[in-house]
Parts: sequence; structure tokens; C-alpha cells
Amino acid sequence: MDIQIYDTTLRDGTQREGLSLTCQDKLHIAQLLDDFGVNYIEGGWPGSNPKDAEFFDRAKSLKLKHARLTAFGATCRVNGKPDDDANIRALLDAETPVVTVVGKTSTLHVRDVLQTVPEENLRMIRESLAFLKSRGRQVIYDAEHFFDGYKLDADYALSTLRAAWDGHADSITLCDTNGGTMPWELEEIVSTVRAQFTGKPFGIHVHNDSELAVANSLAAVRAGCDLVQGTINGYGERCGNANLCAIIPDLELKMNKRCLPPGHLEKLTALSHAVSEIANLAPDDHMAYVGRSAFAHKGGIHVAAMRRNSSSYQHIEPTCVGNEMRVVVSELSGRGNVLSKAEEFGMAVDSTQTDVNAVLARIKELEAQGFHFESAEASVEMMLRRARSDYRPLFEMIDFIVIVEERQGRGLLSEANVKLRIADEIVHVAAEGNGPVNALDTALRKALLPHYPTLGSFHLADYKVRILDGGAGTAATTRVLIETANHVKRWSTVGASPNIIEASWLALCDSVEYGITVAGT
Amino acid sequence: MDIQIYDTTLRDGTQREGLSLTCQDKLHIAQLLDDFGVNYIEGGWPGSNPKDAEFFDRAKSLKLKHARLTAFGATCRVNGKPDDDANIRALLDAETPVVTVVGKTSTLHVRDVLQTVPEENLRMIRESLAFLKSRGRQVIYDAEHFFDGYKLDADYALSTLRAAWDGHADSITLCDTNGGTMPWELEEIVSTVRAQFTGKPFGIHVHNDSELAVANSLAAVRAGCDLVQGTINGYGERCGNANLCAIIPDLELKMNKRCLPPGHLEKLTALSHAVSEIANLAPDDHMAYVGRSAFAHKGGIHVAAMRRNSSSYQHIEPTCVGNEMRVVVSELSGRGNVLSKAEEFGMAVDSTQTDVNAVLARIKELEAQGFHFESAEASVEMMLRRARSDYRPLFEMIDFIVIVEERQGRGLLSEANVKLRIADEIVHVAAEGNGPVNALDTALRKALLPHYPTLGSFHLADYKVRILDGGAGTAATTRVLIETANHVKRWSTVGASPNIIEASWLALCDSVEYGITVAGT
Repeated sequence: MDIQIYDTTLRDGTQREGLSLTCQDKLHIAQLLDDFGVNYIEGGWPGSNPKDAEFFDRAKSLKLKHARLTAFGATCRVNGKPDDDANIRALLDAETPVVTVVGKTSTLHVRDVLQTVPEENLRMIRESLAFLKSRGRQVIYDAEHFFDGYKLDADYALSTLRAAWDGHADSITLCDTNGGTMPWELEEIVSTVRAQFTGKPFGIHVHNDSELAVANSLAAVRAGCDLVQGTINGYGERCGNANLCAIIPDLELKMNKRCLPPGHLEKLTALSHAVSEIANLAPDDHMAYVGRSAFAHKGGIHVAAMRRNSSSYQHIEPTCVGNEMRVVVSELSGRGNVLSKAEEFGMAVDSTQTDVNAVLARIKELEAQGFHFESAEASVEMMLRRARSDYRPLFEMIDFIVIVEERQGRGLLSEANVKLRIADEIVHVAAEGNGPVNALDTALRKALLPHYPTLGSFHLADYKVRILDGGAGTAATTRVLIETANHVKRWSTVGASPNIIEASWLALCDSVEYGITVAGT
Repeated sequence: MDIQIYDTTLRDGTQREGLSLTCQDKLHIAQLLDDFGVNYIEGGWPGSNPKDAEFFDRAKSLKLKHARLTAFGATCRVNGKPDDDANIRALLDAETPVVTVVGKTSTLHVRDVLQTVPEENLRMIRESLAFLKSRGRQVIYDAEHFFDGYKLDADYALSTLRAAWDGHADSITLCDTNGGTMPWELEEIVSTVRAQFTGKPFGIHVHNDSELAVANSLAAVRAGCDLVQGTINGYGERCGNANLCAIIPDLELKMNKRCLPPGHLEKLTALSHAVSEIANLAPDDHMAYVGRSAFAHKGGIHVAAMRRNSSSYQHIEPTCVGNEMRVVVSELSGRGNVLSKAEEFGMAVDSTQTDVNAVLARIKELEAQGFHFESAEASVEMMLRRARSDYRPLFEMIDFIVIVEERQGRGLLSEANVKLRIADEIVHVAAEGNGPVNALDTALRKALLPHYPTLGSFHLADYKVRILDGGAGTAATTRVLIETANHVKRWSTVGASPNIIEASWLALCDSVEYGITVAGT
């Protein structure tokens, strides 16, 4: 590779206000980043909180094909020794092949934040790195506030880098921590620094406070940095970190620098969307390269021109990054989309048996109500099956009732009754749960299990709720996405309604019916 | 001014997918832009649609103090004359002091889009501009696709500029219409072009398809352009136009170029938020300079450092752009965060009355259960108030019950009963809703309204649900965030529980109690 990609979504990315990832979410994202082909995955700061320590413990079972996992931490404390520093110990306990150590560059920070003398900071850097190197780790040194520190006192800033090289750092990443540096300043400073340390490898880590993080990352590469730190979708504290979803295609497509295994750039859009889905943040439709609108044409003139020459209003071919060209207003998804979807499912669509136009009309009607079939292919397949003239439902819902009550502090009770017709038999069951949807799910399974024993091997793998029109308050439409799994397969279904119980019921019904008729066979 | 700011929010900005402005909206924004102090306001394309023509008609009554209004249109048609071209006539009918005319630069566009010969395009440019100049207008020429055209055929691209000068253009704006140009390429091309036309004024208009629009605008200024086109919040087709909300502070604060009347930069954040409000688009909290999170600090280490030296983790003083520093309270917080938060609320924290450590311990305990206080400041404030020895609750919950039922296709019914003790009186009410949470919300308000009439002015502005540990299926912990508003204030509260009804109940209780005790006073 020409450029090493260092992802810090799981550490610096989670500093974004409103972003919070569970340990399971972090493991899932790590796997996606590795599939995508980044070189380093910074998993967290094990010395700062127990959640990150748990991540590194569970991450030992990840099978990574491309990436090296790295644990992040600070240099040892003022007047402390690395070998009895809890933070440094936590770095070793993470058992990652790589550790990344951050230290102070700026005399202002040494004086006001560390409250020590400049020489002590140099010792902390040198000894912390040397200790971690002696324990066999690859060590990356992050020079915090490098550019601000350099502008304040270039000699001292350079001496901190010298301390890191003296501590046998494998590489140094220069950080624009406050995000206030201009690209031309940054490029000049990187060039000057590299000239002082000939042949040593440098990386770049910048923030977006001046809306220049992508430009600054590219400027650093022009000045000779060969490692770029950033996050998926530019998540990060304040205005975010440098956005890898723009930097990687800029490097590969515009600067002809290889960052990923061949063909992997096409996974970019899917990765961006998957990470925002896991973080439960609405994706930014207008993001460069990966946004839903990035290649969408609205203006009449643009659309007419696009029909004459597709390069006339787009700077790259959208499929290079796994995105697509769209024309706005006339949503053109026609018969062809539905038919190719059916082929994808391995269904032979016989037009004497399936009314494709009716399915299409129904999809459009439901999408207008708030359904979203893009992430719920099992619901699309059930819809196609239900449109066949030989379709017979597995069960018919007659009644359901869900009760949640709290009485005089006796604790919450959630209960559901479900009455179904299954093959001419009426089944009426009741079940409890730790919430209304869980009670309903339990009752539905209880009613169906005696007739469909394969159901016993299914479990709900994921349950996501999104409110579609926040402005309508608690009367807004709710969309529920359910992921179900058995030992061989996973499938996703969708339901939408202003009533969360109904939305969940619709998604649950699709989930069990698909499971029994398709996945369970 | 060193740099002229040319705003095209009302024309190119409205090409953004999902953005639509009424004529009244556009007049309102024009007034705000003038108050802010931009030099040019491009109001629309009068030849393209009747809404824009109406805007120019009504805009005649605007009293502009700083800005000149400009109407946008294309050169005359192939083989047509400017004086009988409907589009050019519409430009004159707009009766603006300035007109902006766009023409083709690229031989590819001349051939494939206009479908004519290169010489005819030069005539169209020259004659269209000369005609408009003869009618007394200030004429700005927009060279569409300039950079792509220049790379394809530099000689022809330069000849289109020569045609514009021959038509007596007052200035020329070079456009990176597809947004694919790199800053260093752009800077070099602008320098070369300026050297060909010594002393002539040039501007820049770029798009954000490579996430480089701000950097490209600054690069053009470095190469000598003295007019910058862009939009508020970077609204625009695909990935947007260059974002003036970042470019203006970058120019003024980082490059020392004056763009606005003295003191007007402080209006930037308010302008950004007002335009997103009028456009009915959620503001981007993470936008550079103007975002709600742009100066928000979450990490405990950052907050501790900020309390020692406020420049340690911010690149500018937030008040320069009318924004403010904020401390985010989360599981990573220390005592300092809670105390800064209390100061921000204007509460004098008397440690004899409030046990700050107990509040902090409670925040950490609840965050471990799934609460998330960083987006729910009203819940944090309620917690601080409840920790005071003189706190008295407004009401006490005795029972609630929520029922959702569907019986034999009669449609869904959602009902809630709530029993409260309010000032020694027992209140017991029932209410319906279009879902369980809506029914509970309605019942709670019904019970409280007679005692607390200010509640009548509150409405739920937003309702968000997040499932925290998807892997646990429908038994996962649910976090609910509720935003409530009255006519002067908005506040956010949080609840979490494996049961969505209980999570909603907790957030609703904080919301009404905060509203009555703090916002409603």
C-alpha cells in the first residue's frame, strides 16, 4: 500500500456527542473495518474505562485478515515510572500487537495541563515508549497538539519528537488536535519536520473544526506522511475527526495512492451506512462519495445533461465507491427492480402466478407509510410469496392484547394474550415479558411452536426502532427492524406504524413466517 | 472589504434534495443575509420558474443595507439573439442591479450538451454579456465546469473567458461545478489564469463532492480571487455548495481577510440556525464554528484541561462566531463537569444543600443502566434539583396501566390509566392515544393540567428511541429521549429501561417536572 489507513472510529469517534456504542457494537464495527481492509483499528483506551477493557478482552477472539488492533493510552504520569503506571499496564493487558501512546508537544499544555517542567515531559515520552517497546509492542506515538505546539515553540515541539524516536517509536503521528490549522501551514510544517528526521515514518491525525480535515489529511500526504488517521463518517468530538469516507476515495481516485486491497473501495458506501446503522445515527445523505444524494440529480438541466453524457455532472463513476446515480422526483424503481430482487432470492417469478405490478404498487404504498425495505429483504420476499396465487398463510391473527402496568411500587408487569387460527384450529395463549414487545413475541412463539417446531431454533438477533417524523412527538410513525437468526441464517424484517406495538407485531409476523417457510426448510 | 461574499443559498442552495423554500421564506432569508453583511444575494433564476420571478417582484420592496441583489440566468440559446431570448428578458425583468450569467467552458459540454460548435458558444457568451451591459447592469460571468474544461482543453477554456471580457463582464467567477478538483490543482490553475488577464477580478464557486469545497475556496483566495460564492450551511445539490459558515470565519480569523462589517461575524451562528429553521432542516450539530457541538467537550481529561486553560482544546474563542463552549455530562465526567453544568444552568450549587458526589454517582449508575445524559440536560438539572435538601416533588405516581389491543380486525386501540398523588389529592384519569406512549403522555398531562396550567403551553417536539443492546432482541434496554418545547424554550429529558413504556414514562415525568418548575416560570 502507498498509504496506511488507521481507523479510530472506536476510540476518538465515540467522543462525538450523541454517539455511544456497546461492546458488541464495537466488535461488529471492528469486523467490518477489517473486511474493508484498513491497516489499523484503534479499539479504545483500556486505561480510561471498563467498557474499553472489556472490548480488548473479547476482541482476542476476532479473526482479523487485514488489520492490526491497537490500544490507545497516554504517557506515564508526571514523576511516575511506566512500569507501575495503571494506564500503561492497561495497555499491556489489552494484549494488542500495536499500542498508540499520546504525549504533549506544546509548552502551554506541559505548563498548564500537566503542570510540570518541559524536561519531565520529554522523560515521560521517552521512558513510556521504551518500556512498551521492551515488551514487544509496535509503538505509534501521537504528538498531541503538534501544529499549535510547533507554532508556539518549534524547538520544543521537535524535541518531543526526538524523545519519541529516542524511545524507539516505530512511527509518529502528528496531530492537529484542535482542528485550527490551515492546509498550507500544515503542509509546510510537515515538510520541515520530515527534513529533520530523514527516513522516519510519519502519520497525520486532524480534526474538522475549520471544515478542513480532509484537505489537511491530503496536504500531509503530499508532504510525505504515509499513514492517515480518521474515522468512518468523520465521527468525533466537536466537529469530528477527519472523514475516511472522503479521504480514501480522494487518495485512491484523485491522487492515485493505493490504500485498500484491489476492489475494496466499492465497499465504502455499504461500510459508511452500516456504521451509522450500528451507531443508530441517521446517515448524512449529503456526505461526499457515500451519501444517498451524492450522485442524485435534481435540477432539470442537470438531469437532461446527464442523459446526454453521464460524466457531465459527476466527478467520478459512482459505482467505484459502491454508490449509485439517482434522479430525484421521479423515483423510477420499476418492475425490473422487483424482478431482479426475486432472482436474487432464487425465486422463479412466473407472471401467471405472481402479480409483480401489485407487489410494486404495494411496496411504494408501504414506503410512503414509513416502511423501508432496503434493510429488510425477508419482508420483500414474503411480499412476493404472498402475491403468488398458491400462497397459503401459516396462521391468521384473530386478537392480541398487550398490558403494561405498574401498581403501587410492586414493579412493572408486561403481559400479552394472542389468539390465532392455525390450520383451522384456534389457539389462545398468554405470556409475560420484560416489556410489551418481548411479551408479544413470547406469546406468538408459544402459540406457533407446537405446530412449527423449527421455530424453536430461532432467536431474535437484533431489534431496532427509529422514529421517522420526530416533529410529531409521541404520535410519530415508528419503524421497527427485526433481525432473526437460526444456526445457519440471519434475516431481517420490517414493520411501521404510529403504534410501536403494531409496528413490532408486523415485523415479528414476517420474521416467523419467513423463518418457517424459507429459513427453516 | 478584502473579499466579497456572494451568497447563492436562494438559488444553488435550493437544489439540495429535501430543501424547498416558499417565496416568503426566500424574502426572509434575503433580509437575514443583508443584516449579516454579505455583498451579493443571488435570489434565483427568474427564467427557470415562476416562483423565482415572483421573488424578484416582491424583493423590490426589500430595503437592503449591505447587499446587492442579483438574478441568475444562462447565456442566450444556440443561434439565438440575446434581445429576443426569454431567459435574458427574464433577467432584465427582475430589475436587479446585478445579473449573473452562466456559460460553458468545456468542449465536452459544448459538443454533448449544447450540441453546437466551439465558436458559437464564444459568440453566445460575448453577445449575452454585451447586451446586458448595454442595459446598465453590473454583469458577473460564471464559467461553468471551468476547472474540468481547463484540464480538457486549456486554450478553449481561456478563450471562453476572453469572450466574457470582450462582452465587458465586470468580473468572472470560476466554477468547480462537479466538485472533483483538488486544492493544489485549483490554486495552480487560478494563478495561471490570473496571469493571462492581469488586473481583472476573479471569483470562485465550488461544490463539495470531494469534501474539499472550503479548502478549494481558500486556495482560490490565496491565488488571488477576491469574490467567494457559497451558501449558508453548505446547502446545495448532491454534497452541497461551499459552506460560507466555515469559509467566512476561516478567512477572517485564520487568514486575516475582512469579509464582513466589523462585529458582524458574531451573528454567524444565529444566521446558520435561522436559515436551517426556515428551511425546516435539522441543524447539523457538528458543523464547524456554528454547530451546537462545535465547542462541546465530553472527555473528562479535556474538561479538566479546559478548566485550567480554555485555549487548551479550542482553536478559537467561540463567542467570535456567536457560539458557546459547552460541557457534556456523560459517564466520562468528573465533579468538574457537574459543577460547570450547574453554573451553566445558573444554579448556585451550595454544597451544604446539594450532594454533588451523590449526583455524580447517580449519573454513573444510571448511565450504566443505559441512560445517556449528554443529550438530556433537563434530566441532569432535575437530578441536581432533586439532590437539594429542600426539594419537594410536584407529584407522586401511584399506578399506571397501558393497554394495546386488536380484536378481530376492529383496529388498534391504545389506552392508559394514570393514578397520581398531587399535593395530597388522588387524581385518577384515563386517556386514549394512537400508540401506548402517546396514550400515557395524554393521560399524564390530563392528570396534571388542572393543578399546573402552564403545562397547556408545552408540546412534545421530538421523541427518539434507541435500543442499546440489539443482541438481546426484544428484551434489550431501550433508551427514550424526549424533547419538549413551549413558546420560548426547548428541553430534553431521558429515560431507560428494558421496557419501552417505563423508559418513556421516566422521560415524560422529567419533561413535565422540568417544564413546570424551570421552563414554565
